[in-house]
Amino acid sequence: MKDKIRVTVWNEYRHEKLNEEIAKIYPEGMHNAIAKHLGVEADIEVRTATLDEPEHGLTDDVLAATDVLIWWGHMAHLEVEDDIVTKVQFRVLEGMGLVVLHSAHLSKVFRTLMGTSCMLKWREIAEKERLWVVEPGHPIADGVPEYIEIPHAEMYGERFDIPQPDTTVFISWFQGGEVFRSGCCFHRGSGKIFYFRPGHETYPIYHQPEVLNVITNAVRWAAPVDGPEVTWDNVQPLEDIQE
Amino acid sequence: MKDKIRVTVWNEYRHEKLNEEIAKIYPEGMHNAIAKHLGVEADIEVRTATLDEPEHGLTDDVLAATDVLIWWGHMAHLEVEDDIVTKVQFRVLEGMGLVVLHSAHLSKVFRTLMGTSCMLKWREIAEKERLWVVEPGHPIADGVPEYIEIPHAEMYGERFDIPQPDTTVFISWFQGGEVFRSGCCFHRGSGKIFYFRPGHETYPIYHQPEVLNVITNAVRWAAPVDGPEVTWDNVQPLEDIQE
Amino acid sequence: MKDKIRVTVWNEYRHEKLNEEIAKIYPEGMHNAIAKHLGVEADIEVRTATLDEPEHGLTDDVLAATDVLIWWGHMAHLEVEDDIVTKVQFRVLEGMGLVVLHSAHLSKVFRTLMGTSCMLKWREIAEKERLWVVEPGHPIADGVPEYIEIPHAEMYGERFDIPQPDTTVFISWFQGGEVFRSGCCFHRGSGKIFYFRPGHETYPIYHQPEVLNVITNAVRWAAPVDGPEVTWDNVQPLEDIQE
Amino acid sequence: MKDKIRVTVWNEYRHEKLNEEIAKIYPEGMHNAIAKHLGVEADIEVRTATLDEPEHGLTDDVLAATDVLIWWGHMAHLEVEDDIVTKVQFRVLEGMGLVVLHSAHLSKVFRTLMGTSCMLKWREIAEKERLWVVEPGHPIADGVPEYIEIPHAEMYGERFDIPQPDTTVFISWFQGGEVFRSGCCFHRGSGKIFYFRPGHETYPIYHQPEVLNVITNAVRWAAPVDGPEVTWDNVQPLEDIQE
Repeated sequence: MKDKIRVTVWNEYRHEKLNEEIAKIYPEGMHNAIAKHLGVEADIEVRTATLDEPEHGLTDDVLAATDVLIWWGHMAHLEVEDDIVTKVQFRVLEGMGLVVLHSAHLSKVFRTLMGTSCMLKWREIAEKERLWVVEPGHPIADGVPEYIEIPHAEMYGERFDIPQPDTTVFISWFQGGEVFRSGCCFHRGSGKIFYFRPGHETYPIYHQPEVLNVITNAVRWAAPVDGPEVTWDNVQPLEDIQE
Repeated sequence: MKDKIRVTVWNEYRHEKLNEEIAKIYPEGMHNAIAKHLGVEADIEVRTATLDEPEHGLTDDVLAATDVLIWWGHMAHLEVEDDIVTKVQFRVLEGMGLVVLHSAHLSKVFRTLMGTSCMLKWREIAEKERLWVVEPGHPIADGVPEYIEIPHAEMYGERFDIPQPDTTVFISWFQGGEVFRSGCCFHRGSGKIFYFRPGHETYPIYHQPEVLNVITNAVRWAAPVDGPEVTWDNVQPLEDIQE
Repeated sequence: MKDKIRVTVWNEYRHEKLNEEIAKIYPEGMHNAIAKHLGVEADIEVRTATLDEPEHGLTDDVLAATDVLIWWGHMAHLEVEDDIVTKVQFRVLEGMGLVVLHSAHLSKVFRTLMGTSCMLKWREIAEKERLWVVEPGHPIADGVPEYIEIPHAEMYGERFDIPQPDTTVFISWFQGGEVFRSGCCFHRGSGKIFYFRPGHETYPIYHQPEVLNVITNAVRWAAPVDGPEVTWDNVQPLEDIQE
Repeated sequence: MKDKIRVTVWNEYRHEKLNEEIAKIYPEGMHNAIAKHLGVEADIEVRTATLDEPEHGLTDDVLAATDVLIWWGHMAHLEVEDDIVTKVQFRVLEGMGLVVLHSAHLSKVFRTLMGTSCMLKWREIAEKERLWVVEPGHPIADGVPEYIEIPHAEMYGERFDIPQPDTTVFISWFQGGEVFRSGCCFHRGSGKIFYFRPGHETYPIYHQPEVLNVITNAVRWAAPVDGPEVTWDNVQPLEDIQE
């Protein structure tokens, strides 16, 4: 039997503690809303970690026991310690999957792995968003209709300063006039990264089944494979070389 | 329980009947060597089809019941009927996976789906080949070492006239001085295509476990997902438009 | 001094002859509107060709003397002879640039080179379109603002059934709720292809300076380079091989 | 008349001062060998900068006046100041081109922009290398034969830990049994990056005309375009939104 995918849902977990309206939507934090959803899947086991735990909850043991890390952050990106960022980066390069949600586009972890500013346009007037599937044969589109509609969303607009994704699965339409690459796959090292736009602390987006389904799909896609253990450095020739 | 992946292994099946040496290597044809290997997997069920069967063994019923089609051809590409080629092309666009092996780079099916000539350099002196993994986190690299060595292979060399692959998993080194993109992933329509270079009628390459393992991985990667049923043509606006 | 880029603007040229309203917008046909614009550039020389000329105006001599072919078609795709389609396909693979405009997404030439159905959603209610630049460092974005607005356009919506472009330069937003990959770059053989969405017979889109500027940029990007003359077939080893 | 492309060739410039054999090959440093070659082009103007100059020769004024930066480093990557690395990164994101040569794969500048380790296999036994063109229609392949042969080279082998390039122009074959993606194009922000493998302090590779030709092509490809000035942050809706 195949081993379960070990997921750690990481959340900054500040908005939910500071704002009563947000706490009503996510009484146990966004991480627990997502973890609860994933926890019912037979092939997934979940834990959570948050910014204010020691080492942000991401000790060496936790990272070593994580197959896919989900990351949500917004107001406290700069409080994430640089050495934790480096550890996460290298775990991804070793093979750990990473699912980056919404405002985590500006997290140190994502910016470091992309090498770009990851800036974008934004607006918060609770407008309508539609995420159109542009790669219908991709495993992250499993069980997804032609588009997912989110009735009230924060807008994110292009130009989104990321490297061209290896595969773009979703492109969003916003009522106010913008578009956005909303579901972006990247190979980095032996790891896989999925950026997924939806989600905001003031809307109940992580209670919407279509959005949660995409997160489940992304976890399965990003899970490590048993690929080659890559070696580096000075190597002997495989062939005889006669000069 | 998830349904099994229904694989059809298609073989031109001429060399094995015409040449005694080749018949010794593949007494029941290359298709059966591959089918036997796949048949032991719990999540796969296999059938075969060959050129000389009616409709080349690819009736509408067979195609409709095929999740992933594996294709081997060499000396009789032109005998494949155009209407069968069109049916295979549209089944791929609908979601069927396609694994294209070795000399099938010049099959009508592959050329039609690529839109290019699919020409390459070649040489047959039984030289050494090494397939290096360049995307170690890809599911097709599962269980693969840093490189696969094939002791005696026909050489295929760049320039390989294909569209840039969505992902290149393997690049081959050849003893005589050439390189080749040997494992190439393409999304086309709702389907996925994997071109895999190894295999030749005069070498026992489809008995080599590393090569067979890649074919198994490719079948799982190329299997259809339950993505959106795409609709085309004239559509009503989703939004009210006031001029 | 560098040679001029020799452009042939091909137009089906039927709508303009059949419909008085369209004739008012393009009295000499869309091809001449585009050709006039390109003709003022010091590094470009232009000719035109149309469906109803012998060999559709695309004789061997014309094709051999064309560096970049611009293609517009809509109502008469099926009248384009298959042997001309094949000639155009192979000229592209040899290095000729191809700029495919608007409804030419369903031209035989484009479908053959893409290998997919090239289908899409559409609607004609003169709605607003915005083409957002998503790759601002690309030469086709030269002189382009953050977005190009087209006040009245036919809508084209995803899923657009094309292979993933090598580079996506523009993504469109439509008032009615859809998005579309509107500026798509493809390498095919030694040639380069740019699909550009804007343009419709009933709107004066090929008089809009931002749209014409993109076509000029595309011509320069798609112009052939003096790359290697690729050889195919059986080749001698470059290295001594001792077994 | 179009403005000239302003190139700055940056060199660590240590090997040439420390080792007599290397000084014989490049008496004025590798940067000057490259700069002399580029300086004869009518559309290029060149300056140089080296590690031991104040601010590594990369003051704000120099960076602001640089369209394309060429980077060579090897033994002193860690001596490059982090604030200079950040400045170079952001100039690239703003539009400056970057050509990264050989051992600069481990430079802080390249690693920061890639987000990966940029590690690889290597060996120094003066073996033969062949760089095969795999994208013959790309402007960087202009004037290049089917392959460039380098008689004595340091080997670099896959797995090369970089993001999948937007376009791979060259793949190298090495006598000892390895392959390598040797010419890799990346868009990052509004800038373009070309990694080019050849070059080593102990071989006269930057005197080889085919290698120098590729560097010239790369400079022209990487030169900034006059694309949109991208704006970020909070924006007003472009459309009226009535709920």
